[in-house]
Amino acid sequence: MNASSPPAHLLAAERRPLPAAMLEALKARFAERCATALAVREQHGRDESPFDVAPPDCVVFAQSTEEVAWVLALAHEHHVPVIPYGAGSSLEGHLLAVQGGVSLDVSRMNEILRVNAEDLTVTVQAGVSRNQLNNEIRHSGLFFPIDPGADASLGGMAATRASGTNAVRYGTMRENVLGLTVVTPQGEIIRTGSRARKSSAGYDLTRLFVGSEGTLGVITEVSLRIYPLPEALSAAICFFPSIDAAVQTTIQIIQMGVPIARCELLDAHSVRAVNLHDKLGLREAPMLLMEFHGSQAGVAEQAETVQEIAREFGGEDFEWATTPEARTKLWTARHHAYLSALQTKPGCRCVTTDTCVPISRLAESINESVREVEEAGLPYFIVGHVGDGNFHLGYLIDPAIPSERETAERLSAQMVQRALRLEGTCTGEHGIGLHKQGFLVEEAGEGAVDVMRKLKKALDPRNIMNPGKIFAL
Amino acid sequence: MNASSPPAHLLAAERRPLPAAMLEALKARFAERCATALAVREQHGRDESPFDVAPPDCVVFAQSTEEVAWVLALAHEHHVPVIPYGAGSSLEGHLLAVQGGVSLDVSRMNEILRVNAEDLTVTVQAGVSRNQLNNEIRHSGLFFPIDPGADASLGGMAATRASGTNAVRYGTMRENVLGLTVVTPQGEIIRTGSRARKSSAGYDLTRLFVGSEGTLGVITEVSLRIYPLPEALSAAICFFPSIDAAVQTTIQIIQMGVPIARCELLDAHSVRAVNLHDKLGLREAPMLLMEFHGSQAGVAEQAETVQEIAREFGGEDFEWATTPEARTKLWTARHHAYLSALQTKPGCRCVTTDTCVPISRLAESINESVREVEEAGLPYFIVGHVGDGNFHLGYLIDPAIPSERETAERLSAQMVQRALRLEGTCTGEHGIGLHKQGFLVEEAGEGAVDVMRKLKKALDPRNIMNPGKIFAL
Repeated sequence: MNASSPPAHLLAAERRPLPAAMLEALKARFAERCATALAVREQHGRDESPFDVAPPDCVVFAQSTEEVAWVLALAHEHHVPVIPYGAGSSLEGHLLAVQGGVSLDVSRMNEILRVNAEDLTVTVQAGVSRNQLNNEIRHSGLFFPIDPGADASLGGMAATRASGTNAVRYGTMRENVLGLTVVTPQGEIIRTGSRARKSSAGYDLTRLFVGSEGTLGVITEVSLRIYPLPEALSAAICFFPSIDAAVQTTIQIIQMGVPIARCELLDAHSVRAVNLHDKLGLREAPMLLMEFHGSQAGVAEQAETVQEIAREFGGEDFEWATTPEARTKLWTARHHAYLSALQTKPGCRCVTTDTCVPISRLAESINESVREVEEAGLPYFIVGHVGDGNFHLGYLIDPAIPSERETAERLSAQMVQRALRLEGTCTGEHGIGLHKQGFLVEEAGEGAVDVMRKLKKALDPRNIMNPGKIFAL
Repeated sequence: MNASSPPAHLLAAERRPLPAAMLEALKARFAERCATALAVREQHGRDESPFDVAPPDCVVFAQSTEEVAWVLALAHEHHVPVIPYGAGSSLEGHLLAVQGGVSLDVSRMNEILRVNAEDLTVTVQAGVSRNQLNNEIRHSGLFFPIDPGADASLGGMAATRASGTNAVRYGTMRENVLGLTVVTPQGEIIRTGSRARKSSAGYDLTRLFVGSEGTLGVITEVSLRIYPLPEALSAAICFFPSIDAAVQTTIQIIQMGVPIARCELLDAHSVRAVNLHDKLGLREAPMLLMEFHGSQAGVAEQAETVQEIAREFGGEDFEWATTPEARTKLWTARHHAYLSALQTKPGCRCVTTDTCVPISRLAESINESVREVEEAGLPYFIVGHVGDGNFHLGYLIDPAIPSERETAERLSAQMVQRALRLEGTCTGEHGIGLHKQGFLVEEAGEGAVDVMRKLKKALDPRNIMNPGKIFAL
């Protein structure tokens, strides 16, 4: 661990005890929906990050906004930390109860409250997952595009400002959340935004809570933009002689303004991993996995333009996923890349990076990172939302060998510093959590982080909402 | 005036005196760039709103971020209000010095600092106007789409979360600002965001300052997304038998997901006004003014689809603006609609509304508003960014006849209450300013406005930044 990544075990020293009176009150109201069994607590004290478990003192399964408000009012009274929990798919330690307290599980708040097909909006409870939403609206010819790899909850996706493979065309949670129901740290219920597409009505509270990582309140309902399924939709694979060639192709696509819907890089390691996991039989070479949305003519036109660009950089002829089944198989494999890669080294953990840079700097950003990890000799894989300038390099480390983690953290820090030099960000979509707090200061500067701290203290003066995340207070 | 629109003259009672020591310090540093002449102060104490002038005590013309920081540190020390001033084109009283203080004019900070054509980003000083930017980048085949009617400054456009005619396709300032340089109320310079397209690095300070109406700090630099000029671009006019027919057509266009770039409604009154002002010779009937962007084939396809939809609702054959000159003439006339309408009733002022509703509610929103103003007998005009569900109904009132203003305010309040019932917002793009503070509370609720107040107090505890705007503290 280096100075840029504060170790969880140190933060854990700040644990605050859970007052007996509070636990009694929770048990009285929630009965078996207030769990203190170690297994449940441990399951809620971890996420997909490589950190050790930091279990909460208890887990409460809320079923309504009112229940969330009741828990927060109680926690506020007792100065007890509350960590909102959705699907548990964070990669940055967001869910670890580093100061103890209550894990507030909203996964049972999984009702799709309203579908307004005619306005292309939906309102869902925070525990609804992205797949659940898409399964519900698909029959109406609609879809919700934001797709982090995991089947995350929409509340959690809002809280980490998530994106995924479609962001290059459809934007991230930042652009697709219309409004929220939020419970404040004092237990008050507020509503941000409306169902209008745009508004200049006061401070943009919606965008303040989107990406706040559970540190300013609990998101209990989310209103989202949805989209008509495109008339035509086609997915293609293109193999390249090198990662650089695939990246140069991507840069050209974006600079020409081609409205590509998905443009994903997989390096040869990732292709090998998904081959093993999903029996795909793909050639193990760097590839772009792309998707085009539009009218029949529009899709054909886009694909032709992109094929031409790819050829200039040595890309091969597109291989098409022509049936919906073939397409789904490919994208499912892409979404399994992280888990697939973990399985290539039994018992390993993954240190994942998430830099995002302006598109013209992407080649430098990736090429240098590859050079460094090759030199260091750690196993790794790369998947990238390269159309956005965002990619993930995963270092596969043996948790029993401290030097492997140290190497991974060193490489990760170098990559972030390069991204910042290139005017990018340390995190495109995973958030700061526990792991990137030093990077945030390097990126935003002490002055901007101080402004964030002032906002946090103003809304949560007792520091009960997911304390220890994003920044030290 | 009704309870929803706090009268400026009451707020003016809170004027704080400008300490002599502060004025001396400003004069010593800025010499003739610190003006106290009544004419300059009055020019800076008004905007395009119908409110009376509330002049500041002095006007400082800043030329750099450092000068802005110096002024704010001084104002903070002396507890003196500062009102950032760009182009003076606010419609909601944002620029009125209702508590006195310094108008900080950044219009001389008008340098385009960087154009990164390969990343489709620019960085400009806050005083650069949208036309200045477009004139600078057009030769590179690029454009910036956000276009409020006036040739506003980009700092001011960020501060009010402005949009305009292209928002239906390209989004508003919310979606198009990548990052900001901001001077805090204590005079510290911070940078928000990076040049990356997306980021999950901490609280979204960029989106907090976008739309903060000068109440949280002074925006001195703005990094923006820009776009390649489309390969093909065509503008068309379509006349309809009624406003309702034009609106129903719009609803259908949006619901079908046609990627129309501009979709503007002008009622017969607006057409008459622009005819008089710009000698257009258009038929004086409700019309949609539309623009299509894309490839040659894509534009033809979109136009064909839209023409078909329009015919279903009685729309006539499209009339095309085939040359760039004809197109520019049409859009210039559209942008002059507000001024043109003012000239149809000499000596009048305009009370402008700005509601925005989900697209399926737009017909009800407009039709009822038209019915009410026709009943009341006030002269009016309608222009609308109807593709977004946003329209402006302007009531033309004689300032010497108080009952006309009362009627206009009553109708405006009814319109807002209807928009809120229809799950929309009281302001799509003009902001709250002085005029809509009551509406903001009705829309967001006391709880959410309290959260806004907490944020304001945390960042500006001495309430020096544009005090009296958005909400009462």
